[in-house]
Amino acid sequence: MSASERPGEDSLIARFFAPIAGDGALGLKDDAAFLTPKPGHDLVLTADALVERVHFLPEDAPGSIARKALAVNVSDLAAKGADPAGFLLSLALPDGWTEAWLADFAAGLGEASRDFSCPLLGGDTVKARGPLTLSVTAVGQVPTGRMVRRTTAKAGDLICVTGTIGDGALGLKLRAAPAWSQGLSPDEKAHLADRYLHPQPRHRLAAALREHAGAAMDVSDGLAGDLAKMMRASGVSAVIDTDRVPLSPAAAKAVQASPDLLDLVLTGGDDYEILCTLAEKDLDRFRQEADRVGIPLSVIGRVVSGHDRPVFRMNGLERRYDVGSYQHF
Amino acid sequence: MSASERPGEDSLIARFFAPIAGDGALGLKDDAAFLTPKPGHDLVLTADALVERVHFLPEDAPGSIARKALAVNVSDLAAKGADPAGFLLSLALPDGWTEAWLADFAAGLGEASRDFSCPLLGGDTVKARGPLTLSVTAVGQVPTGRMVRRTTAKAGDLICVTGTIGDGALGLKLRAAPAWSQGLSPDEKAHLADRYLHPQPRHRLAAALREHAGAAMDVSDGLAGDLAKMMRASGVSAVIDTDRVPLSPAAAKAVQASPDLLDLVLTGGDDYEILCTLAEKDLDRFRQEADRVGIPLSVIGRVVSGHDRPVFRMNGLERRYDVGSYQHF
Repeated sequence: MSASERPGEDSLIARFFAPIAGDGALGLKDDAAFLTPKPGHDLVLTADALVERVHFLPEDAPGSIARKALAVNVSDLAAKGADPAGFLLSLALPDGWTEAWLADFAAGLGEASRDFSCPLLGGDTVKARGPLTLSVTAVGQVPTGRMVRRTTAKAGDLICVTGTIGDGALGLKLRAAPAWSQGLSPDEKAHLADRYLHPQPRHRLAAALREHAGAAMDVSDGLAGDLAKMMRASGVSAVIDTDRVPLSPAAAKAVQASPDLLDLVLTGGDDYEILCTLAEKDLDRFRQEADRVGIPLSVIGRVVSGHDRPVFRMNGLERRYDVGSYQHF
Repeated sequence: MSASERPGEDSLIARFFAPIAGDGALGLKDDAAFLTPKPGHDLVLTADALVERVHFLPEDAPGSIARKALAVNVSDLAAKGADPAGFLLSLALPDGWTEAWLADFAAGLGEASRDFSCPLLGGDTVKARGPLTLSVTAVGQVPTGRMVRRTTAKAGDLICVTGTIGDGALGLKLRAAPAWSQGLSPDEKAHLADRYLHPQPRHRLAAALREHAGAAMDVSDGLAGDLAKMMRASGVSAVIDTDRVPLSPAAAKAVQASPDLLDLVLTGGDDYEILCTLAEKDLDRFRQEADRVGIPLSVIGRVVSGHDRPVFRMNGLERRYDVGSYQHF
């Protein structure tokens, strides 16, 4: 389709994005949206950008790309104990975009928006002679003063993660260099691939986190690196029992067959699980609430005083991962 | 500087962006920022993306690019009657970025942030193998239910604009094809160039707009096109006295020398002035408040019933600009 046959921005918005917009978006016909905050609540704001070939691959389904862009932002809100209130999307389209691509993208975005209870509030669509770039700003709400911080982990607290760790990184590796995966069943491979493509933000855990967590963040850049960030930001350190880091059956099988993959599991990104600390006395109630919303929870270690990088213990060996400081970009 | 010598994202944030961040940004050390809304207020949210060679030129000073990215978003807030509360920035850096460029960019952003009373709340920095792309989400506040809409212009109301129209488009044209500008003085050329580079958002008019305006939007895609949008969204039309459209001395001189430039003045973009409607009885008070905050105001026409494109009248001739429907991208 030549550029001259393409519809203008207003027409695209009306056809593809207005149907998935929330009330305050005014049908996306205005310059801005409004949001009436719940009385006694703070707004929580986060922005994450995704770039083709960095955060997703060009052959990914448009609906999956859209879902991921929203999911990684809702994951940040969840870690802060915030309930989603809406999002804005800036979309920089490459030269070769088509209406069919955009229709699929918008359909995936709408579905994710409903799944995460996070309506589209506004945004911008521009043409860029470069890779597809998406920037989402997500807005959430917490009772005033109750946003869960990254800087408030205390020595003595337990360290927990939700779900399983390493699936996303293995899912990406499946596509780039799959030799190690010969022992996996098709279902196991599909599980890992899906975990890379379709992060599951843990927004249903938000209320329990703000009730019980001492500190929290989402695991997006790898467990070891993100844990190191949270501990450093809190002025403490951590000891992790590597055996207790929860792995999916597929990831466990992969690591058993190729033990070297454990490093990838612990340092690779794309988990979008919640990493949090809490007082031991609060564990039972926190676990009950996680159970109630169907989110698996694992205690993997403990916050300790000190400023060293977190220690991962296994089979009597101690390992400190040298990550977090070398993420050049 | 090779990629391996470049600092990581955390270090860049700490050095360049944390110093310009607002209170709720928590030093940009967390995954999200919080904002405690004023009681009885709505949040107003808007996002605008800027792409190199589309919205600015690669040779523009980094500080000017930063200022423009924030200014165009604050301009949207102003048009909605919203006082700025903060912004988030997603920055997709091209391969060739340098620390010096980023330092100048952050300095310009900080200065603009202070000028517009709009603190940095968060964002994301990613590397993209493409043009520099900036996406800003700006957050403003209005008393609950008082956001000024685009869809509420009423037949019989006056139509006003702030400042002067056409300078930005002429400023851009100066750089691309300056033959027409021979009769302008260096100061006049500098004025036009500066108006393209450094939009002046009219945030100080926000309170007066929500008090008096019937409908408003900012003029970013050209007066004729944006007026047509606002009238269509409101189900009305407009009659404009072209002679009353305010021109700067430089623009007036350019149009006098090359009358064809009038079309560019009326349809070109990058004005970032406020277009609004109001009841005639409210004009005096609105003008007093605009005077008080030092913002020039011109009545340029009147809202009329009907669904035709707005008419621009001059010297007994009527002109309808065929714009707004052909903005392919």
